[in-house]
Amino acid sequence: MRANPLLHHFRARATRPLINAWMSLPDSYAAEVIGHAGVDSVTVDLQHGMMGFDQMLPMLQAISSTPATPLVRVSTCEPATIMKVLDAGAYGIICPQVDNAEICRRFVSACLYPPSGNRSFGPSRGLTYGGSDYVTKSEGELLLLAMIESREALDNLDDILDVPGLSGIYIGPNDLALSMGYMPGVVITEVEQAIERVLQTALSRGLFVGIFCADECNAKKRVEQGFHLVTPGNDAGILRKSYQYYCQSLCGVQESWGQNGGY
Amino acid sequence: MRANPLLHHFRARATRPLINAWMSLPDSYAAEVIGHAGVDSVTVDLQHGMMGFDQMLPMLQAISSTPATPLVRVSTCEPATIMKVLDAGAYGIICPQVDNAEICRRFVSACLYPPSGNRSFGPSRGLTYGGSDYVTKSEGELLLLAMIESREALDNLDDILDVPGLSGIYIGPNDLALSMGYMPGVVITEVEQAIERVLQTALSRGLFVGIFCADECNAKKRVEQGFHLVTPGNDAGILRKSYQYYCQSLCGVQESWGQNGGY
Amino acid sequence: MRANPLLHHFRARATRPLINAWMSLPDSYAAEVIGHAGVDSVTVDLQHGMMGFDQMLPMLQAISSTPATPLVRVSTCEPATIMKVLDAGAYGIICPQVDNAEICRRFVSACLYPPSGNRSFGPSRGLTYGGSDYVTKSEGELLLLAMIESREALDNLDDILDVPGLSGIYIGPNDLALSMGYMPGVVITEVEQAIERVLQTALSRGLFVGIFCADECNAKKRVEQGFHLVTPGNDAGILRKSYQYYCQSLCGVQESWGQNGGY
Amino acid sequence: MRANPLLHHFRARATRPLINAWMSLPDSYAAEVIGHAGVDSVTVDLQHGMMGFDQMLPMLQAISSTPATPLVRVSTCEPATIMKVLDAGAYGIICPQVDNAEICRRFVSACLYPPSGNRSFGPSRGLTYGGSDYVTKSEGELLLLAMIESREALDNLDDILDVPGLSGIYIGPNDLALSMGYMPGVVITEVEQAIERVLQTALSRGLFVGIFCADECNAKKRVEQGFHLVTPGNDAGILRKSYQYYCQSLCGVQESWGQNGGY
Amino acid sequence: MRANPLLHHFRARATRPLINAWMSLPDSYAAEVIGHAGVDSVTVDLQHGMMGFDQMLPMLQAISSTPATPLVRVSTCEPATIMKVLDAGAYGIICPQVDNAEICRRFVSACLYPPSGNRSFGPSRGLTYGGSDYVTKSEGELLLLAMIESREALDNLDDILDVPGLSGIYIGPNDLALSMGYMPGVVITEVEQAIERVLQTALSRGLFVGIFCADECNAKKRVEQGFHLVTPGNDAGILRKSYQYYCQSLCGVQESWGQNGGY
Amino acid sequence: MRANPLLHHFRARATRPLINAWMSLPDSYAAEVIGHAGVDSVTVDLQHGMMGFDQMLPMLQAISSTPATPLVRVSTCEPATIMKVLDAGAYGIICPQVDNAEICRRFVSACLYPPSGNRSFGPSRGLTYGGSDYVTKSEGELLLLAMIESREALDNLDDILDVPGLSGIYIGPNDLALSMGYMPGVVITEVEQAIERVLQTALSRGLFVGIFCADECNAKKRVEQGFHLVTPGNDAGILRKSYQYYCQSLCGVQESWGQNGGY
Repeated sequence: MRANPLLHHFRARATRPLINAWMSLPDSYAAEVIGHAGVDSVTVDLQHGMMGFDQMLPMLQAISSTPATPLVRVSTCEPATIMKVLDAGAYGIICPQVDNAEICRRFVSACLYPPSGNRSFGPSRGLTYGGSDYVTKSEGELLLLAMIESREALDNLDDILDVPGLSGIYIGPNDLALSMGYMPGVVITEVEQAIERVLQTALSRGLFVGIFCADECNAKKRVEQGFHLVTPGNDAGILRKSYQYYCQSLCGVQESWGQNGGY
Repeated sequence: MRANPLLHHFRARATRPLINAWMSLPDSYAAEVIGHAGVDSVTVDLQHGMMGFDQMLPMLQAISSTPATPLVRVSTCEPATIMKVLDAGAYGIICPQVDNAEICRRFVSACLYPPSGNRSFGPSRGLTYGGSDYVTKSEGELLLLAMIESREALDNLDDILDVPGLSGIYIGPNDLALSMGYMPGVVITEVEQAIERVLQTALSRGLFVGIFCADECNAKKRVEQGFHLVTPGNDAGILRKSYQYYCQSLCGVQESWGQNGGY
Repeated sequence: MRANPLLHHFRARATRPLINAWMSLPDSYAAEVIGHAGVDSVTVDLQHGMMGFDQMLPMLQAISSTPATPLVRVSTCEPATIMKVLDAGAYGIICPQVDNAEICRRFVSACLYPPSGNRSFGPSRGLTYGGSDYVTKSEGELLLLAMIESREALDNLDDILDVPGLSGIYIGPNDLALSMGYMPGVVITEVEQAIERVLQTALSRGLFVGIFCADECNAKKRVEQGFHLVTPGNDAGILRKSYQYYCQSLCGVQESWGQNGGY
Repeated sequence: MRANPLLHHFRARATRPLINAWMSLPDSYAAEVIGHAGVDSVTVDLQHGMMGFDQMLPMLQAISSTPATPLVRVSTCEPATIMKVLDAGAYGIICPQVDNAEICRRFVSACLYPPSGNRSFGPSRGLTYGGSDYVTKSEGELLLLAMIESREALDNLDDILDVPGLSGIYIGPNDLALSMGYMPGVVITEVEQAIERVLQTALSRGLFVGIFCADECNAKKRVEQGFHLVTPGNDAGILRKSYQYYCQSLCGVQESWGQNGGY
Repeated sequence: MRANPLLHHFRARATRPLINAWMSLPDSYAAEVIGHAGVDSVTVDLQHGMMGFDQMLPMLQAISSTPATPLVRVSTCEPATIMKVLDAGAYGIICPQVDNAEICRRFVSACLYPPSGNRSFGPSRGLTYGGSDYVTKSEGELLLLAMIESREALDNLDDILDVPGLSGIYIGPNDLALSMGYMPGVVITEVEQAIERVLQTALSRGLFVGIFCADECNAKKRVEQGFHLVTPGNDAGILRKSYQYYCQSLCGVQESWGQNGGY
Repeated sequence: MRANPLLHHFRARATRPLINAWMSLPDSYAAEVIGHAGVDSVTVDLQHGMMGFDQMLPMLQAISSTPATPLVRVSTCEPATIMKVLDAGAYGIICPQVDNAEICRRFVSACLYPPSGNRSFGPSRGLTYGGSDYVTKSEGELLLLAMIESREALDNLDDILDVPGLSGIYIGPNDLALSMGYMPGVVITEVEQAIERVLQTALSRGLFVGIFCADECNAKKRVEQGFHLVTPGNDAGILRKSYQYYCQSLCGVQESWGQNGGY
């Protein structure tokens, strides 16, 4: 089976951070351009991104033609969708709102074939992209990240991290802030302390730790903080900010909609 | 944030009825043509319409280029889908089968950011279409309509209408008739009495009230009955009936399939 | 090979007029709904319609599931496109701007395999839909209509109609009016006289004669005038006019864009 | 309403086996080619196939233009999706992982209008394809097959088969093997005995029995065993194996990925 | 008819430069994000961009929902395509390789209805987006730009600029450089002199002058040089360069493919 | 720049034949499955295949994720389309109906940047897939094959083969047979002699020679005859024949449409 470079990099205790691109554009050409730009992985965001399954498929194919590893953030912990996304060739799943161990077990179980889990048989593009031994070997090559992004998840952190088969976690700072009573986009000490605690708890168990970042500057900070994988903003935000900058620079125009890309 | 004309019209106690188009065609050009034809809103029907998320997106974009407000009827009260549809820029959600207060709370909660609800952060096209202050202001600009369309919902009507954050209701007369033991498409006194009761109960609380109508003639009756928003049939039905009429008129041909468009 | 009902109806000298639907919506579901509504044929308009090849294909498939015969109006007399549209299963081609005999020969030649024409071999969906003897029999089952829609075409009418293999003509009254110095949409005696002359010339040679009509009322007049096939307006126009009527009827709203659907 | 040939064939106690094609390709042209190749039905696989709703729609339309009956395997027993797939014109549903009677009741209920079930009204393409009496007659023309593919389902077999309205079952040998502790793709006596028991139990109740088969050879064995409907492999597997054979035959090349197509 | 802001800005002799975005991504969401970012126009590039007609349509619809004006660069001076792109609602056409006056006349003629030109009647989305008087007024609201990008065009410059109905020109510096024997991407005195001559010749006739620019820095120079409209790079280039910068900044990774985005 | 394995194999005088798959299915997943099945190249057929540009793009991306080289057969020798297909990342073009040297020069010129040809600058996906030095190196890595498939081409064979920059030829036996007065699908001595002459003439000049074959058996014969690249049938034909065989084998059903896949 085709190896998962993210996991091998992690298991080899490589010190270089992993750079993850985040796609909300329903666009296989953008995915391919980004996948060739030096990133380690490209995540198709089925939760807040503007694509369903039918647009995701060619994106995963396009990413598969680049050195980057294809990941998918699903929209919720729904086993049938998770299984189908894996059948479509995702080499990792970022599952949102894993607020307790039961959700985490459901997530991991959907990703693994029996006896480890209850994934249904029908590997399709997993086999095409991964190789003919996909069914027996995928358990070791899929990156399974649970999103920690609520006060409830903080409360259940140890139980969540104890779930066997979980590769690690992915922190969603914006939803975490909202859940703790703050607006996203501002640095809040209480939120930062929670993030640091989650990071250290996961690291102490030898788990993989990733995080969404507002931008490249924030990503740099997260790398220094010790995260294995960082996501410097998203694709639509880059286009928006670039053209806003061009317009301001060239003629001082300031548009009224959509200043902050958010996430 | 871009204002929601439907809500402002309603809050201003305007007497003119709101005309809502209903789309089962998976077609952004049809959506645009209809949105420019004078209607107040265009609803993309994800429940019985022939589109999934990937075809809905360009439809919402096309509607956004017209004076009409983009609404979506989701297929069921599933929070992750509702959130994603809002992220795609729907300015209102019509949620089917809201049979009790718990379903209604789940629906409303999915539409509002914390602390009012539990909508996940990632506004995407909501921000692009709505404006940069979408996250803080969307709570006041999204039209949230619960469908009352079952005997169970009639029994729980007060509890459903009590749910904070709900904008109003949308009556589905066909499913309501089926639930009460009748076939859709015929005027049944018991069903009409139930509809009148729902209307008056909602009006007495100052809620917004809309309804699906068999055709323009039925819509006229509903306007006189006091509904704020009426839906005169759907797009596919208009095409079917128009061509059936043309064929009969021009050569007396009568086709055998699909005479009544239903809904 | 599957027979072409339009041609068999014509050859049988049936008196009932043929009703043709005209599609500018890029939408296979609309095509199917219309194809089941009693029309004899559905024409996908590649010239002014909002679809390219990729959206045309499922439309032809959908029409093939109905009693209606699938036709395509190509955007210009370009042989490679005409051949590909036939390979996609169109059972007839309406070719615009056939202004002289040379264009007409190019058109007909593109539709017929050698030795009659120079159509390239690769029948694809023609074979799937038409049957395994498509290559040898298609010459007798494809409806090939040259559009007469310019002063130049009027001048070259006899030469155009002399081209062997041509099934008949299809008049485009709007472009014809423009070419003669008038605006479309108004009845002009000079244009009507030209149309009548084209009709009679074609009928006298035993050719098939069709025409685009502003609406059902105009189509009725054309039937009485002696046309074999009439096209009562188009799909987008029906949607636009229906919703405009609904809005006016229900609340007197009059929209500002797109009043006349044109063609 | 258009009759369901599969059910009529079954009710007429015809002895010829029914051949079912299985599609994982998101491709309406492939669906049409296969539907014209002599099969009795074509199943669009929404569980492990590479299509969502938006790609499924033109596939169902294309199958509807052929002699084959359109079926859909849904991804899980989710009522809103099942209802929408029926609205899209599927003439039968294969529901995976029907492990107990409650799941089975939920499945059947989603397929039938009240009072038999709770299917929501809005027949859309069901009406277009099925005919104007679809709502009253569909209950007798839809093939509803519960997948028996787990040890739990074996334990609950009688209760599952007792659910009124169920047409029959469809065995998934690969997931059944995994659930029983074996790898798919090898003949295991214990699994074969379970399959035989399910087959005989269903036959003794007069139910319809179908099964997924590794290939044509395995399908032949299942026909002899007494199954009414067999599925000889899937479309992607046919393409893979054909080209692998060509390459080996023509130059001895042996590719490294995706040898066994699986299912 | 909806006014063309670019032309009104130009006719009003406004001094602020017009900023034009350039799209090679086949993506209506990206188009909408960019259209809301402050640019004056968004050009869908049918020549080197990764979209055909079917992907262009929703892009034009999305741009129409923003303050930006939708333009299209066609792939060659082919009248039928130009007409169809206008029918799809483009408010301006950039025509490549207008190397002599005959090509220019063909281009302009395809954009204007008789008697000014030979555009075929069937305004479709032009009417929907532009308004009901589109056919009579479009001649004054469409921006028609001929690309000057070859030595031959330089030689025929006066004749090209003399063609009545032409709004102005758009310089393609890369193809111009290639045509003059140089590689694109480097500042060459001879090419710069040619650009300056084209600019001044066009300005002296009161024509609109636009140009493609390598990036924002180059665009600033062109604004100072006197161009009315500048195009600072393209969308795919922005994504590529941004992620390349992120990777270098965060971990010094240097990818091997696609360093220079070109154009 | 990414090397073209077909050309390197050829230049290295490797004796193993090259196996080329031929796609008429508009399907990126099928393309990927086939690309992983051991073939050397996958050709997307824009002439008789059921895809336009918008469906071709994800197919080229999918092929790019496999060991196979992506080729495209264009529908005619139209420079703007050829250039755009190359910009989309095709690593070779098969151009139909190259009947004389002028057509051949137009074809080759469209594929090469100045000074060798007149390809317009804007490499897009060519750059993404090929590498940052694509513009300067593509001239040596693109496989340019002229189809010899008419009596006229036979007459002009030497002149065609003399065109500088041409990589070789690809014989279309079916169109060649039709052009010579025979029906495709039968072995005709006169046609075979012409094919042999074309093969030997091309080989004697050191050119690359490929051919379309009815099936694997015919391909084997062509390999023995000395062709470098063979195309054993096409994808739709494989699906059709496989299911026809299954149906006959399992129940003796013989369908009526589409027996011979043709090409």
